[in-house]
Amino acid sequence: MSTQTDTAFEAAVEAALGQEQAARGDTTQEHTGAPETGAEQLTPLGRSLRTALDGTFRDVRRDLRAMLTGGDFLRDPSLSVPEARAWTSNALQGIVDAGHGGAGFPTSVGGDGLVASSVVNFEMLALADLSLTVKVGVHFGLFGGAISNLGTEEQIQEFVPQVMSLHLPGCFAMTEVGHGSDVQALETTLTYDADTDEIVVHSPGPSATKTYIGNAAADGRMAAVFGQLEVAGTNHGIHVVLVPLRDDSGDSLPGVTIGDNGAKGGLDGVDNGTLSFDQIRVPRTMLLSRYGGVTDEGTYESPIDNPNRRFFTMLGTLVRGRICVGGAAAQAARKALSIATRYSLQRRQFEAPGREDEVLLLDYLAHQRKLLPAIATAYALSFAQNELVDTLQSVQSRPVGERDQKAQRELETRAAGLKAVSTRFANDTIQVCREACGGAGYMAENGLTELRRDADVFATFEGDNTVLLQLVAKGLLTNYKAMWGDLDMLGMVQAAARTFTGTVIERTAARPAIERIMATAQRKSDSETVLERSWHVTMFEEREQHVLDSLAQRLRTAGQDESRAFEAFNATQDHQLLAARTHMDRVVLEAFIAGIEACEDEATAAVLNKLCDLYVLENLAGDRGWFQEHGRMSTVRAKAIVPALNQLCQELRPLALPLVEGMGVPEQLLQSAMLED
Amino acid sequence: MSTQTDTAFEAAVEAALGQEQAARGDTTQEHTGAPETGAEQLTPLGRSLRTALDGTFRDVRRDLRAMLTGGDFLRDPSLSVPEARAWTSNALQGIVDAGHGGAGFPTSVGGDGLVASSVVNFEMLALADLSLTVKVGVHFGLFGGAISNLGTEEQIQEFVPQVMSLHLPGCFAMTEVGHGSDVQALETTLTYDADTDEIVVHSPGPSATKTYIGNAAADGRMAAVFGQLEVAGTNHGIHVVLVPLRDDSGDSLPGVTIGDNGAKGGLDGVDNGTLSFDQIRVPRTMLLSRYGGVTDEGTYESPIDNPNRRFFTMLGTLVRGRICVGGAAAQAARKALSIATRYSLQRRQFEAPGREDEVLLLDYLAHQRKLLPAIATAYALSFAQNELVDTLQSVQSRPVGERDQKAQRELETRAAGLKAVSTRFANDTIQVCREACGGAGYMAENGLTELRRDADVFATFEGDNTVLLQLVAKGLLTNYKAMWGDLDMLGMVQAAARTFTGTVIERTAARPAIERIMATAQRKSDSETVLERSWHVTMFEEREQHVLDSLAQRLRTAGQDESRAFEAFNATQDHQLLAARTHMDRVVLEAFIAGIEACEDEATAAVLNKLCDLYVLENLAGDRGWFQEHGRMSTVRAKAIVPALNQLCQELRPLALPLVEGMGVPEQLLQSAMLED
Repeated sequence: MSTQTDTAFEAAVEAALGQEQAARGDTTQEHTGAPETGAEQLTPLGRSLRTALDGTFRDVRRDLRAMLTGGDFLRDPSLSVPEARAWTSNALQGIVDAGHGGAGFPTSVGGDGLVASSVVNFEMLALADLSLTVKVGVHFGLFGGAISNLGTEEQIQEFVPQVMSLHLPGCFAMTEVGHGSDVQALETTLTYDADTDEIVVHSPGPSATKTYIGNAAADGRMAAVFGQLEVAGTNHGIHVVLVPLRDDSGDSLPGVTIGDNGAKGGLDGVDNGTLSFDQIRVPRTMLLSRYGGVTDEGTYESPIDNPNRRFFTMLGTLVRGRICVGGAAAQAARKALSIATRYSLQRRQFEAPGREDEVLLLDYLAHQRKLLPAIATAYALSFAQNELVDTLQSVQSRPVGERDQKAQRELETRAAGLKAVSTRFANDTIQVCREACGGAGYMAENGLTELRRDADVFATFEGDNTVLLQLVAKGLLTNYKAMWGDLDMLGMVQAAARTFTGTVIERTAARPAIERIMATAQRKSDSETVLERSWHVTMFEEREQHVLDSLAQRLRTAGQDESRAFEAFNATQDHQLLAARTHMDRVVLEAFIAGIEACEDEATAAVLNKLCDLYVLENLAGDRGWFQEHGRMSTVRAKAIVPALNQLCQELRPLALPLVEGMGVPEQLLQSAMLED
Repeated sequence: MSTQTDTAFEAAVEAALGQEQAARGDTTQEHTGAPETGAEQLTPLGRSLRTALDGTFRDVRRDLRAMLTGGDFLRDPSLSVPEARAWTSNALQGIVDAGHGGAGFPTSVGGDGLVASSVVNFEMLALADLSLTVKVGVHFGLFGGAISNLGTEEQIQEFVPQVMSLHLPGCFAMTEVGHGSDVQALETTLTYDADTDEIVVHSPGPSATKTYIGNAAADGRMAAVFGQLEVAGTNHGIHVVLVPLRDDSGDSLPGVTIGDNGAKGGLDGVDNGTLSFDQIRVPRTMLLSRYGGVTDEGTYESPIDNPNRRFFTMLGTLVRGRICVGGAAAQAARKALSIATRYSLQRRQFEAPGREDEVLLLDYLAHQRKLLPAIATAYALSFAQNELVDTLQSVQSRPVGERDQKAQRELETRAAGLKAVSTRFANDTIQVCREACGGAGYMAENGLTELRRDADVFATFEGDNTVLLQLVAKGLLTNYKAMWGDLDMLGMVQAAARTFTGTVIERTAARPAIERIMATAQRKSDSETVLERSWHVTMFEEREQHVLDSLAQRLRTAGQDESRAFEAFNATQDHQLLAARTHMDRVVLEAFIAGIEACEDEATAAVLNKLCDLYVLENLAGDRGWFQEHGRMSTVRAKAIVPALNQLCQELRPLALPLVEGMGVPEQLLQSAMLED
């Protein structure tokens, strides 16, 4: 960083030191009976960091924060599973009552028409309760989203208003017992019966049973069911049909068998269940037909001729779900970091020579290293998520037919990648936070164990993380010509073998800022360089480029023999995952740089710059081996990284409170009894 | 490995391939109605690996396996907290009824006199249910152990039989709200009242409340209470007194306030609670007085003059608890690995070009990399744990006064280190297993989420892992002159500053085997060397030595100024943790080598050798950066590690089932519905 930003950072630290004392005063005040419902007391730096992280849709975020802190959206972790389910259904109604049922739906039916707002809604709910968040996601996002994305205008007019008002609680019945990740292999059949003009929905065997279906075990009245559409003896691939599940009294309809998945590792408030269908008949008009349906004459018709392209177009419209899940997982991590960091600012342990009080947990270097780099990463993921949501809004605000196909594929690839990265980060970080709070961290009333349980499955649903990272690798290898959702081993190998002639790294939204950074870079000594942003960018770019190039080369060499395609694919699987990860690292870094660039307050930008240093060095520290092996980092630089990490932690330590505030989790939502001691 | 062992390994693989088919046959048979209670069907290799891992106390392990598979020791994960507590209390009685209440207690009161058997008991129970395991540990190990280790012979005669028979359910009341890790700072007071010849037990304020105390919320009738002993106005430091908690009808006694910690992140069957004391009076004879008590004349007397040494001697007798916790955590990881690996051998996903069936999960390289190196580490930790238990038995079989002090300190250091390493491994590995099983892994009935919840706190209780690793570093820096349980920052810095003149790495039990390995080592090319055991040993030794030397040097330089001792300590905290970790890595590797050496079957030894390679390379892969920075590993060798890892995974893949069997978790205890499909 330049001397100018150094000075701005020092000023921010000095100001924050005063603020922290003031904030402690506030805390004391609260103990003596401050108002419960009052607005949050934030330090100026905390407020300004929060503004930066709230991004384009900061007004939506503020509205949601107000709704959540003013209402009853925090679940008592000691509720039993049936109680938690009842609470969640009730809270879901509360969201509709607060006027948030229309987020993301078309204006033609009274929605706000902003796909982004539904994502931001989902992210913000995650600050309160993840069961409620997932229930919202299942009903509005997946069920409602299937209708509004895959249905015809008539179907939208008929069903979406009932979704928005919660009069028609719905399920998204994709996953089957036999197939989760591999959607194209689903076994449920949707057979058109010309005689009665109906679709016959059938589960041919136990492995075709739909499972883990949210909203199915208790509340769902209708399901969007994925299955193989057959018309006049011809299979037209995966389509979706709406199937009523229960009558008005809640009993399952004839031919529908509903099971309960029972106790899970978390998300106690979500009624996941199983569904199977025994020759259920629904009118032809229940087939969601925007991308393919049966005409009045009983023949199959689709605006997309290529069945593969049709499948991926249909699934592509559902990309929002992955963006939601990644965003919510990162929020859960921010909530955990807020709890653990605030605790570390009040909890003392062990006397130290020459100190009057016992030492605050956050004054220990090891504790700083547990929490502060994770906070830096949480900031990085915020900027990356905001950029992704903006892209989603921009790509999907056009009618499907007019969308930029490459931009759509790139969006799908980034959504898959950021979901995998964010959910991995969440699971790891919440656990670190739990352990950093010792025995107190293990008590349910302190909030961390429940967060951990609920966020866990985010690594699995809306796409297993390992599969998603392979999709990213495939997208990179094929320059986004490949389609969404398909592992397609042979395709990946062949694409690399036939068409790949060298990878191109395209810089993202931060391009102008990065080009300026690179242009003004100065040569410095090896050990100084570790704090130079241009060096950071170079390292991230070179790593991605090299990993991708060498992956392509290995696949080209191995892929000549088609009968060995699986072996070629499989032998490079770890390499594919590395390519995806290093790509996402670069995308996230660029989003961080763009976020700093967009920040107008100098002191705030200086703090963000320091956090960005920390994010980068934490990342590089983990890959020091790779960089040295590939001649990209000298021994001297590699050795300088950990000391620089420690130094950055020490510099950012005085800003811990504003950094936490900046992450945007209102104190009223922390649900951690130990913070009130 | 030599050509001879290569051939033995190949033979093992060939035999295993036949066995796996046979085992599949068995599975089919089970589906058609095989006997429920029959002995486990093991492959010959699985049986022989299990024998190697069962170690010195294999007969005790076999007995426990028979008890657990024959009885009712598996808890239904859907039980509510009150139901789970009731179940656990009942199962505890089942252990006494099965004749296992005397494990580890002195023969003078009818125990088996084998400290090791109590640890092995604890480890084996962990294969069934961790709440039950912890309840056993609290009552027999901590409460009973406090009496038998810290009590006089009369006290042992009076109380231990009631502990063994479960007539006197007990608590171990050490941790307070204000102090967990820092035992010397406990606030509870134990004041001798000469007028009445009583000890007055008192909690001076809210931070003195005992908390997280197992067995306190519901069942405990008596507690071993830690507090500051004051006699005639002089503080004699931490001592332990027995305090009755409840009357025969279960109501708390006057002056005792009992609270319930309520819902936790797991261990639902353990009734953790809070205890506080309002001037409770107990007879002087309730003070556990082996290492310090009050005479008939009302004066304090102790066989150990130095108060610090007394404290650490007292705590040192409790080292068994840490050994138990580390061992049980590793067992939980083995159970999770058994579930996930068996699932990966039956679950298929995605078609592959040229393959008839969809691909088995474990045939994917990425899946192998998730599970197989973890299995190798689980084996490594088995051998290390067995060695530690043997050492415990050998050190503690002598009367306290005659024990080798250095051996006792070294035992305490290793116990602290292995507890930290094993619990870290458990938390990480169970999560990997959960995710590797996808949505099914998240269903409670499949066993992984409950394991994860229960094992979580093992990273915290019996010593926070970060604090424990610092104790290891201190032990190494002071060559085991330092005492147990004390972070003592100033002491650590001063010891390094004053007396440290170079570290000495002493090889452990495996010394002869290692010296032979080193003597017969042959020079090979860089890329071949990665599979050479002598190179492995060199890498682990040099890493430990260098990290420790450089830590000592940094502390020497910084420690000259006593007033800056905290800063010197704190600036090197991450370095201390690294020193501890690399030390433990070397100890674990040596235990693995000794375990192979002790294995008499050539084919089994060859498989263990291959697993040891995998353990080592997984470890070195994570530290490639360090090794290159410090000139200990060439770029060529560093680059050869990951390909060698992949190759090892592929070679071990056909042995997956016997490897799982070898980990010693009976199929009847897996509690995973998905494996029965």
